[in-house]
Amino acid sequence: MPRTPSTATPSPVKAHAFAGVFRELEPHMASLDGFLRDQLSSFEPEIRAMVDYCIDTSGKRIRPALVFLSGWREPGTPAAELVRAAAVVEMVHLATLVHDDIMDSADVRRSRSTATREFGPTAAVLLGDALFAHALHLATGFPTTEVCAAVSESTRRVCAGEIVQTLRRRSTDVTPADYHRIIDLKTAELFRVSCFLGSRLAGYPAGFVAAADRFGRHLGIAYQIYDDLADFFGREDKIGKTLGTDLASGKLTLPLFALLDRLPAAEKATLSEEIGGTRAAEPKLRLRQMMEFGVFDTVEIAVREEVSGARAALAEWPNEAPTRHLLLLCEVLLSQVASLRPVA
Amino acid sequence: MPRTPSTATPSPVKAHAFAGVFRELEPHMASLDGFLRDQLSSFEPEIRAMVDYCIDTSGKRIRPALVFLSGWREPGTPAAELVRAAAVVEMVHLATLVHDDIMDSADVRRSRSTATREFGPTAAVLLGDALFAHALHLATGFPTTEVCAAVSESTRRVCAGEIVQTLRRRSTDVTPADYHRIIDLKTAELFRVSCFLGSRLAGYPAGFVAAADRFGRHLGIAYQIYDDLADFFGREDKIGKTLGTDLASGKLTLPLFALLDRLPAAEKATLSEEIGGTRAAEPKLRLRQMMEFGVFDTVEIAVREEVSGARAALAEWPNEAPTRHLLLLCEVLLSQVASLRPVA
Repeated sequence: MPRTPSTATPSPVKAHAFAGVFRELEPHMASLDGFLRDQLSSFEPEIRAMVDYCIDTSGKRIRPALVFLSGWREPGTPAAELVRAAAVVEMVHLATLVHDDIMDSADVRRSRSTATREFGPTAAVLLGDALFAHALHLATGFPTTEVCAAVSESTRRVCAGEIVQTLRRRSTDVTPADYHRIIDLKTAELFRVSCFLGSRLAGYPAGFVAAADRFGRHLGIAYQIYDDLADFFGREDKIGKTLGTDLASGKLTLPLFALLDRLPAAEKATLSEEIGGTRAAEPKLRLRQMMEFGVFDTVEIAVREEVSGARAALAEWPNEAPTRHLLLLCEVLLSQVASLRPVA
Repeated sequence: MPRTPSTATPSPVKAHAFAGVFRELEPHMASLDGFLRDQLSSFEPEIRAMVDYCIDTSGKRIRPALVFLSGWREPGTPAAELVRAAAVVEMVHLATLVHDDIMDSADVRRSRSTATREFGPTAAVLLGDALFAHALHLATGFPTTEVCAAVSESTRRVCAGEIVQTLRRRSTDVTPADYHRIIDLKTAELFRVSCFLGSRLAGYPAGFVAAADRFGRHLGIAYQIYDDLADFFGREDKIGKTLGTDLASGKLTLPLFALLDRLPAAEKATLSEEIGGTRAAEPKLRLRQMMEFGVFDTVEIAVREEVSGARAALAEWPNEAPTRHLLLLCEVLLSQVASLRPVA
């Protein structure tokens, strides 16, 4: 039996990932939360409580922040089209999380039980579908098909990335190039389209929109590398989700590539067996080895390279209103990476 | 390891459900098959073979037929917008099948192995998502957001219907009204939107579009009742999918309601236990009882009632070109139902 969702009453506006950094985003996030809550009535009565459970997360709202910041004009009430676009990308993201958690059999996400744990995997598949469908429906609220076209294409690319990742699980012949391709599709794509939509809907010139688009892609790759680093170096109470799952599920990420590069042949072979699933994963041993071999520094350099790419994308647009905010986002990400650094 | 899809070369145009009845639909179905095959190149190279596997089914193409017939003008090459709309609804349908088969753990659909069997459930979740996303992307190829809005809303309703069905599985307090609501959402919705889109894109007057919409809804309900009847009375070699799954999976459908109504109390209790999953299902016994108690007739009457509703919807439009074809569809469905009738 599915449990009754535990969130009957609407919660107050959630603290988003940048609450401490972007005070200006507060009215935007409040508008977004209100807009998302208003969507509940569009769903069939039988599934509203489940949709509410998915929407009402202590989410980081990173993609909405990208929409708002890329379309930044001045402080105050956000433009209605930015709120709608932010809701579209966030709902697509929430749908992918619901489906991801099924595959990972994850019990905890954002410090509470996942939809698949709460309602069962079968309902979670369909619930994710309903969220996807409604996100695309919201995207049809714009005067032209442009937003819907951009978002549906991005969604397909995100799914393709997840499929490739799934097919490559437990495979040890994945290359760093494969990894880059996977995270470009599964993560950077939605970051990219968020920046595209924000800048485009705010009416910025085509050159800036293209720059914001490139910025988003680089930032997304950097973010995913950070996320993969956190899977080893993070603390669950800080990150708010089950960690250490990548090695256990046979997912080759950058920290593991870096460790494989450094391990002596015999140890490399046993780690490969852990990834391949023919030997029990030893995350604590592998983390100790990562610390010993300086894996953190190597991965941090990779994040910095992508952040440099993101900054470079905006180099020709120093005076547009969004630029300052987007550059600050780069700083925030780098400081998040730094906060994972193990104490010597 | 996922197996390599077994369909490397494009197959010839498939026989659709109405091949013997609607010779006029052949160019339409050929155009649709070509259009669907052309979509492959829009998917990321890594997932094309999987998408091809899903698209290249010996599908019945019922929903595309509804688009074409509701938008019928004259024999010949179908209008490009009808082909596109047909591809959109078929791709949404294929996506739902991919996800359905995961939940049913079905091995066979349309006489061959399901995507979930072929690629594993995890990849199948994502593959279904990618198909959904691309269907919606195709819907953005129309000049306005109308098609995309209609299809995304329908998709959400289909998913809601499937969720309700999933949550009610193994529950014996489902009522016939609940059943009607579920099939209205999960099946009739896509039939309805197919008829809406066909007639609307072909430029028929609003009154006829509304009539076609109502027709599609009734036909969809009738079709699902037929499908549920076939799960008990059909032959796998004729229907092309695993049958007898409804009782085994605890899904209360109209034939089971009719049987429960007729069984003596003790037998009713054991059947309830089979539905509830606390007793092994006995499909052969239940089929014998259905025959004994005349369940077939009761269910056939329910199909006829919906078919009457479908016909009535078109009563005021006897001279529009689609009407004759749509009424013939009703005959086809009734004859399919009749072909399930057990020989005395």
